[in-house]
Amino acid sequence: MSKLWGGRFSRQIDELVHHFNESLTFDRRLYDEDINGSVAWARGLVGAGVLTADEAETIVAGLEQVRDEFDSGTFVYEPADEDIHSAVERRLTELIGPVGGKLHTGRSRNDQVATDFRLWVMRACDELDGHLQQLQQALVGSAEAHLHVPLPGYTHLQHAQPITWGHWALSHFWPLARDRERLGQARGRTAVSPLGAAALAGCAFPIDRDGLAQALGFEGITPNSLDAVSDRDFVADFLYVAAMIGLHMSRISEQLILYSTAEFRFVRIDDGYSTGSSIMPQKKNADTLELTRGKSGRLLGNLAGMLATLKGLPSTYDKDLQEDKEPVFDAFDTLCVVLPVMAGLIDTLTINPQHMAVQLESGLLATDLADYLAKKGMPFREAHGVVGRIVRLAEERGVEITALSLGDLQQVNPTFQADVVSVLDVKASLASRAVPGGTAPEALAAQLQAAKEACGFNAA
Amino acid sequence: MSKLWGGRFSRQIDELVHHFNESLTFDRRLYDEDINGSVAWARGLVGAGVLTADEAETIVAGLEQVRDEFDSGTFVYEPADEDIHSAVERRLTELIGPVGGKLHTGRSRNDQVATDFRLWVMRACDELDGHLQQLQQALVGSAEAHLHVPLPGYTHLQHAQPITWGHWALSHFWPLARDRERLGQARGRTAVSPLGAAALAGCAFPIDRDGLAQALGFEGITPNSLDAVSDRDFVADFLYVAAMIGLHMSRISEQLILYSTAEFRFVRIDDGYSTGSSIMPQKKNADTLELTRGKSGRLLGNLAGMLATLKGLPSTYDKDLQEDKEPVFDAFDTLCVVLPVMAGLIDTLTINPQHMAVQLESGLLATDLADYLAKKGMPFREAHGVVGRIVRLAEERGVEITALSLGDLQQVNPTFQADVVSVLDVKASLASRAVPGGTAPEALAAQLQAAKEACGFNAA
Amino acid sequence: MSKLWGGRFSRQIDELVHHFNESLTFDRRLYDEDINGSVAWARGLVGAGVLTADEAETIVAGLEQVRDEFDSGTFVYEPADEDIHSAVERRLTELIGPVGGKLHTGRSRNDQVATDFRLWVMRACDELDGHLQQLQQALVGSAEAHLHVPLPGYTHLQHAQPITWGHWALSHFWPLARDRERLGQARGRTAVSPLGAAALAGCAFPIDRDGLAQALGFEGITPNSLDAVSDRDFVADFLYVAAMIGLHMSRISEQLILYSTAEFRFVRIDDGYSTGSSIMPQKKNADTLELTRGKSGRLLGNLAGMLATLKGLPSTYDKDLQEDKEPVFDAFDTLCVVLPVMAGLIDTLTINPQHMAVQLESGLLATDLADYLAKKGMPFREAHGVVGRIVRLAEERGVEITALSLGDLQQVNPTFQADVVSVLDVKASLASRAVPGGTAPEALAAQLQAAKEACGFNAA
Amino acid sequence: MSKLWGGRFSRQIDELVHHFNESLTFDRRLYDEDINGSVAWARGLVGAGVLTADEAETIVAGLEQVRDEFDSGTFVYEPADEDIHSAVERRLTELIGPVGGKLHTGRSRNDQVATDFRLWVMRACDELDGHLQQLQQALVGSAEAHLHVPLPGYTHLQHAQPITWGHWALSHFWPLARDRERLGQARGRTAVSPLGAAALAGCAFPIDRDGLAQALGFEGITPNSLDAVSDRDFVADFLYVAAMIGLHMSRISEQLILYSTAEFRFVRIDDGYSTGSSIMPQKKNADTLELTRGKSGRLLGNLAGMLATLKGLPSTYDKDLQEDKEPVFDAFDTLCVVLPVMAGLIDTLTINPQHMAVQLESGLLATDLADYLAKKGMPFREAHGVVGRIVRLAEERGVEITALSLGDLQQVNPTFQADVVSVLDVKASLASRAVPGGTAPEALAAQLQAAKEACGFNAA
Repeated sequence: MSKLWGGRFSRQIDELVHHFNESLTFDRRLYDEDINGSVAWARGLVGAGVLTADEAETIVAGLEQVRDEFDSGTFVYEPADEDIHSAVERRLTELIGPVGGKLHTGRSRNDQVATDFRLWVMRACDELDGHLQQLQQALVGSAEAHLHVPLPGYTHLQHAQPITWGHWALSHFWPLARDRERLGQARGRTAVSPLGAAALAGCAFPIDRDGLAQALGFEGITPNSLDAVSDRDFVADFLYVAAMIGLHMSRISEQLILYSTAEFRFVRIDDGYSTGSSIMPQKKNADTLELTRGKSGRLLGNLAGMLATLKGLPSTYDKDLQEDKEPVFDAFDTLCVVLPVMAGLIDTLTINPQHMAVQLESGLLATDLADYLAKKGMPFREAHGVVGRIVRLAEERGVEITALSLGDLQQVNPTFQADVVSVLDVKASLASRAVPGGTAPEALAAQLQAAKEACGFNAA
Repeated sequence: MSKLWGGRFSRQIDELVHHFNESLTFDRRLYDEDINGSVAWARGLVGAGVLTADEAETIVAGLEQVRDEFDSGTFVYEPADEDIHSAVERRLTELIGPVGGKLHTGRSRNDQVATDFRLWVMRACDELDGHLQQLQQALVGSAEAHLHVPLPGYTHLQHAQPITWGHWALSHFWPLARDRERLGQARGRTAVSPLGAAALAGCAFPIDRDGLAQALGFEGITPNSLDAVSDRDFVADFLYVAAMIGLHMSRISEQLILYSTAEFRFVRIDDGYSTGSSIMPQKKNADTLELTRGKSGRLLGNLAGMLATLKGLPSTYDKDLQEDKEPVFDAFDTLCVVLPVMAGLIDTLTINPQHMAVQLESGLLATDLADYLAKKGMPFREAHGVVGRIVRLAEERGVEITALSLGDLQQVNPTFQADVVSVLDVKASLASRAVPGGTAPEALAAQLQAAKEACGFNAA
Repeated sequence: MSKLWGGRFSRQIDELVHHFNESLTFDRRLYDEDINGSVAWARGLVGAGVLTADEAETIVAGLEQVRDEFDSGTFVYEPADEDIHSAVERRLTELIGPVGGKLHTGRSRNDQVATDFRLWVMRACDELDGHLQQLQQALVGSAEAHLHVPLPGYTHLQHAQPITWGHWALSHFWPLARDRERLGQARGRTAVSPLGAAALAGCAFPIDRDGLAQALGFEGITPNSLDAVSDRDFVADFLYVAAMIGLHMSRISEQLILYSTAEFRFVRIDDGYSTGSSIMPQKKNADTLELTRGKSGRLLGNLAGMLATLKGLPSTYDKDLQEDKEPVFDAFDTLCVVLPVMAGLIDTLTINPQHMAVQLESGLLATDLADYLAKKGMPFREAHGVVGRIVRLAEERGVEITALSLGDLQQVNPTFQADVVSVLDVKASLASRAVPGGTAPEALAAQLQAAKEACGFNAA
Repeated sequence: MSKLWGGRFSRQIDELVHHFNESLTFDRRLYDEDINGSVAWARGLVGAGVLTADEAETIVAGLEQVRDEFDSGTFVYEPADEDIHSAVERRLTELIGPVGGKLHTGRSRNDQVATDFRLWVMRACDELDGHLQQLQQALVGSAEAHLHVPLPGYTHLQHAQPITWGHWALSHFWPLARDRERLGQARGRTAVSPLGAAALAGCAFPIDRDGLAQALGFEGITPNSLDAVSDRDFVADFLYVAAMIGLHMSRISEQLILYSTAEFRFVRIDDGYSTGSSIMPQKKNADTLELTRGKSGRLLGNLAGMLATLKGLPSTYDKDLQEDKEPVFDAFDTLCVVLPVMAGLIDTLTINPQHMAVQLESGLLATDLADYLAKKGMPFREAHGVVGRIVRLAEERGVEITALSLGDLQQVNPTFQADVVSVLDVKASLASRAVPGGTAPEALAAQLQAAKEACGFNAA
C-alpha cells in the first residue's frame, strides 16, 4: 500500500497495523463535511496566492464529482485509504491529476479532521434539537389531552399527594428544555473554526481564516493553533449532553414501565411499542422503554470512556484523539432512534383514569389535613404530629383517613371542625396548590402555555 | 431519638440505620444557605398570611442566633439531628419556642434542600471562576514573560515544528476560558428557585415564589413543582465542568512533568512545588503535578458515579438523591486546591531556553522546506515526498537536514535554490506562520492581548 | 516544617502545597499495618546484618509504644507529618532516639505504603466477606420461612409465571456467592508482599523477603521490584468487587421498593428501616433501600475514577498513586453500613401472601397452557400461537383465562380436553418446574440446602 | 412482518421500533453457539420424552444445514428476524417443516440467549488468553535479549536508580500474568449453564440440565432459575478484565512513547508500527502506541456503561440486558488487535543502549552512597541527609556527584573512605540489589526463568 506520508519509510506497514490505525471504517461518515472543507480551502488558497482561480475551480469541480460518487454509493475505496481525508484526496487526484496535490498546501490532517468533525457535530446538534422538540411536543400533547386528570403523586415511590396527568407529563418536558439549552451551548463551543491551524503552529500561507470560517458556517475562529488541533472539549460536551438526555429518558422510561404494570395499570402502551414473549403467550412487554433505560448506561459509558481517553495527553495532536468519533456517532445514532420512538410511544399512549382513581383513595390527603390545622393557626410541626396520629389510627382500624368521623378526628385533636370535609377531597387538594408550577387548574394552564411556547407547539 | 416525622412510627429507629440515613455529617456545610432560605421563607409567610410580622421577626432573630452559633463554632448537634434542616429547626425551636414550629408551614425538606444546595452551588461556581481566572492570569504572565522564546512544538510527542513558550502557555489558557463559559452556563441553570414546590405538588399557601427567588439571589423560578424537587441536572452540570477542568489540569500537568525530566530539562519546578524521596537523596519530584493529574480521575469518577445514581429514578424525590452532595463537595474542595497550586507553580516556574534550543536543532524545519517548494509552485503532495527523501538522506548520513548542502538538496530535486537557507531557520519558521493564532510575533501579540482581556489581566 | 527528605531543598514548602501533598488526613487509618510492617522490617534487618538484636528490640518496643498512642487516641500529629509513615517514624525517633533513624534502612516509602495498603485491603476483604455471609444468612432465613409461598414472577416487570418467595429470596443469594468468590480471588492477588522492593530496584541489603512476607501474613512475594511499587491492580480489583456488590444491592433494593408500594403491597418494611416525611404525615418511605440503590452509583464512580487515574502512568511510582486510598476507604465504609442494614431489613421484613395471591390471579398460567398443548404433541411454536389467541379472547371479554370454559378453549383449538383444568392452577404450575433450580418443592428444598451450606447457615 | 410471539397483538409493529428492538445486527455473531445450544437441546428433549429420536435427528440435521449457510455466507435474513434465535428457528422450520416448531419446547429466549452468550464469552476468554500469552512471550524475548543492559529507572519520571532493560520488560510481564489469572477466574464464573431455566421459573419438562451442560462444555449449572436469566455478572467480569488489560497496555504504551522521543531516544519503533505526517515530512509517529493508550478509555467506558445499565434492574429479565453484547464484542475486537500489535511492536523494537547510558550518568547512584554510609553504621535517615547535601554541592558546582573528590565528600561528612569509589558504579549498583525481584544478575536470571515458565516460553 502506498501512503500519503510514505517518503521516509523503508518498509511497508504491517497489514494488522494498517487495520488498527485506519479510521475510514467510521470516519467515512464525514465525507460531506470533508468535501465542504476542501472546497472552502481551495477557494481560500486563491486568496492566499497559492492557487489560480482556474486551478481552484478544477479542484472544486473534482471534489463535487467525488461527492457525487459518495452520494450515489459508487465511490470505490482503495486498501491504502487510511481515512476519509486521504481517500478523498486520492480520488480527487485520480480524477483531475497532479493539481489535486496542491489542495493540501498549508493544511494538515490535524486541522482538517478537527474542522470536519466540528461541522458534523454542529449538524448533529441541530438534528437532535429537532428530535427533542418533537418529543416535547408529544409531551405537551399528552399533557393538554389529560391536563386535569388526577393521578397519585409519589415521593420515594410512595403515595404522596394528588397531582394530575398533565402535571406529570410536563414534569418530563422541562428537563428536555434544559437539554436543548445545553445542546445549543455545546454547539456554540463547537462552531469555532480550527482551519488554518495546520499541523499545530499555524498556516504558513496568508489564508483568510475568518473568511473560511464564515464560508463553512462557523461562528468564529480558534484563537491558538495548538489548542485548535488539540481541543476535543466539543466532543466531551456533546457526549455529556447525550448522557443527560439518556438520563432523562431513563427516568421517564422507568416511570412508564411502572405505570404499565399489572399492579399500577395507569397506562397502556400501544401494541406498536410493545413486544411479546417467545415462551409466555400472555406477555406484552414495554421493551422499547426498557431498552431506552438500558441505553442510558451506554451513553454514560461513551462519556466516561472519552474523558478517560483525553486524560493526560502529552502533546497537541496525539493519535489517541482518533478515538473521538465512534462514541459520538454511537451516541447520536442511539438518540436518533430513542427520541422518536419515545415521542411515538407518548403519542399513542392510552391512560386509565379509573385505575389512577383507585390509588388516589389511599391517604394522599394527609398533608391537606395538616395544612388545614396550620391554617387554623397551629404550628405546622405540631399539625404534622397530629395528622401522624390520625394516620396511625386509620391504619389500626384498617381504613382510609377519609373514613374517620369528625368525632374520631376531634378525639385526636379538638381543632378539627366540620369544615374539614372540604379539604379531604382530591379536587380541593389539587386546587389548593395554586402557586406557579403547582397543581391548581390556573397554574397548570399557565405552565402548559409556557411549555407550548418553549417548543413551538402551536406552530407545529 | 425523637424525629421530626415520627408521629406514625411505633418503634425507634435502629442506630446503624440512623447513621446510614443521616446526612448531617456532610450537609452541615449548607448551614448558611439553609438559614438564608429560612429567613426568606419566614418573611414570605407573612405575605402569605401565615405568620404575623412579629412572628416572622422572632423567627428571623432566632435564625440569626443559630447562624451565629454555627459561625462561631458553638452550635451543638444532637444525636437525633438527621440533616442540617432538622438541626436548624430543632435549635430554633429551643431558642424561640413553639412559634419556631410554624416556619415549616407550606415547605418540605424536598424544596428546602434543593434551594439550599442550588444556592451553595451558585456560590461554588463563583469561587471556582475566580480560581480559574487567577490561573489564567498566571498563564498570561508566563506567556508575556517569554512570549517569543522558541520551544519545540510536538505532535505525537515527536518534534514537529518550532513554536514559542508564549504560544504554548496560551494554548492552556483557552481551555480555561471554555471552562469558565461552561461554569457560567451551569450556574445559570442552577440559579432557578425551587422554593414553593413543597413536597412535590406545590405549596398550598399563597406564597410569592418570584419574590422569594429574588430575595435569595436566584434568577428565576422552576416551572413545574415535580421537576423542582426531582431535578439534579445542576449537580451533574457542576460535576461535568469540574471533570473538564480536571482534564485540562491533567494535560498541562503531563506536559510540565515531561518538560521537567532530566531528558527534556525545559523547565525547573520551584522547590516550593516539589518534594523529595525518603530513600533517594538526589530526587526532586514534581509531586504536585502528578497529584493534579491523578485527581482528574477522581473528578471523572464523581461525575460517572452521580450519573449512574440518577439513572432510572422512579419518582420525584427519591432518597437516592441524598447522594448528590458529597461528590460536589469533593470536586469543589479538590479544585480549590488544585487550581491555586497550579497558578503558584506557573508563577514560580523557571524556563530553560538553552535546553529548548538544543532540541530545536533536530529537524523541525522540514515542513518549512516543503512549504518552500510549494511556494515555488510544486504541488504540496509532491513537495512532501521530496522533503521526505531529504530527511531520509540526512538520517542516513547521521546529520540534521540543516547540515545538507544546496548540492545535496538539488540532487534530490532541482527546484531548490540558494534562497532555501532563509527558510531553514527557527525564527523564519516562527515568523512565517502569521495567520491569527499562529506563531508569528504579531499574531502572538494579538493573541496575548485577547487573553489579557478575557481574564482581566490589566485590571489585576 | 522540617521534612524527612529536605536535605537538598533550599526553600520551605508552601503551606497550601503541603496540604495538597499530605495524605495523613486519610492514610492514618493504616497505622496498625504500618507499625506491623515496621516491626517485621526491624526484625528482618537483624537477619540482614543491619541491626543488632538489641537495636531491633528497642525499635520494636518503641513502635509498640507508638501503636498504643494511636490505639488510645493520644498520638499527637505534627504539622510537618506528611503521611502515616513519616508520622510514625518521627514519633519513634522522639521516643527512642537516633537508632530510630536506622529503621528506614533499605526500605522506601514506595514499598512501605504498598505493603501497608495491601495488608489493610486483605483485612477489608475478610470483613466484607463476613458482612456478605451475614446477608446471605438473612436471605436464607427469609427463604426458609416462606419457601413455598406463591409470588408472581416477573420478566420485563410484567406478570410472567408463578414463583415462590423462597425462590425469589434465594435468587438474591447466589449473586452474593459470586461476590464472595470474587472477593476471595481479589484478596489472593492482594496477599503478595512488595516489601524488599525498596524505591523501585530492590533492596541493597540481604533481607529475607519470603520470611518478611510470612511474618506479615502474606501468601507470597512480588516477582519484580518495579511492578511491586507500581502495581495497584489490587486496588482496582477491590473497587470492582465493591461495585458489583453495589449493583446486586441496587437490584434487591429496587425490587423491595416496588414490593413495598401501595400498588404491590407484597412486603412491609419494618419501621426501624423506614423514615417519614417532614411535610406528609402519612408517609413511610423505604429510605434505606433508596439510599442503598443510590450508593451503587458512588461505588461505580470510585471504580471508574480509579481506573482513569491509573491510565497511562509513566513510571513505577508516580504520585498519582496516592489517589488510591480514599476510594477504597469510601467503598469499604459504604458497604460496611449497606450490607448489615440490608441484612437487618431482610430479617425484619414482613411479607403479605394475600397481596401476592391477588396478583397471581392474572394470567400467569398461560405458559402452562402452552406446555399442556406441547405435551399433547403440538409443536410448541404452534401451541404458543393458540394460547396467544386464548389470551386475546379473555382480554376481549375482560376476564382471566381461568374464567374461560372448556368450550371456549376448544373453539380456539380442539386439542384441549377436560384435564386442562389441572394445569390452570398455581400450585400445579410451581410443581411442574422440577428441574434443578426450578420452583417445584423438591427443587426448592435442594436449592435451600445448597445455599445453607454455602453460607454456613447451620453453624450460625 | 410476522413475529414469533404475535398471536395476541392486533397491530403491526412500527418499523423504527422494529429497528430499535432488533439485536440481529450484532447478535448474529452468536450463530455458532446458538446452533450448538439448539443441537444439545434437541437431544435433551429426547431424554425428556418430548421428541422422538427421529424428530431430534431431523432437527439436528436441519440445524447443521443452517450452520452451513452461515459458515458459507449464504444465510438469507428476513426483515422479520428479530434476533439470531428467531432467525435460526425460522430458517430451520423452512427447511424441515413444522417439526422445527417443537424445538422451542420448554425453552425460552431468556435461557437461550444467556446460554449462547456464555458459550461465546468462554471462547473469547480462551482467545484473549492466547493473545496475552503471546505478548508475554514477546516481553520475555525482549528481556532475555537485553537482560543486563543498564537503563535509568524512574520514579515520578525522574531519574531514580539504575535498572536494566530486562528488568523493565519483565515489569510489564507480571501484570499480564495477573490479567490471565483474572480471565481464567472470569471464565470459571461464565462456564455455568443456565439452560433449563426457561423464561424464569424453570423448565416444565424433565430435561437433564447437567447432561446438557456437559454436552456444551460448561463446568456446572446455575442453582436458581431466576438468577440464571438475570445474571450478567459474567459480562461485567469480562469487561472488567478487558479494562484492566487496557490499563496495562496504556502504561507500557506511555513508557514506550516517551522512550521513543527525540529527548529519550532509548528505543526505535519499527517502521511497520509507525506512521508519518500528512504535512511534516520528517515525522515518524508511534501511532500504534498512542491508539493503544487511547483505547484504554474506550474499554473503561464499556465497563462503566454496562455497570450503569445493570444498576437497579427490577425483574429477572429486562430488555435492558440486550445492551450486554455490543460492549463485549467491542472490547474483544479491540483487544484482538491491540494485543498482537503490541506483541509485534515489542518483537521488532530496537533498543539504544548508548542513549540509555547517557542518561545513566546523571546522579542515579545517590541511594548507593547513602546505603554505603548506612553499611558503615550511620542511621539511614542521617545518611540520607548527608547525601542530600552532597547532591546540592554537586548541583552548585554544576557537576555530577561522581565528579566530586573524596576530599569533597569528607568535607561534608568524615565517614567517607577511599572504598566509596566502588559503590559509585552502575554495575555495582545493579549487582547490590540481589533480593528476589531485584536488579542483580542472579535475581534477574531467576525472574526470567519464572516468567518463561509462566508463559510456556520454552515450549513456544
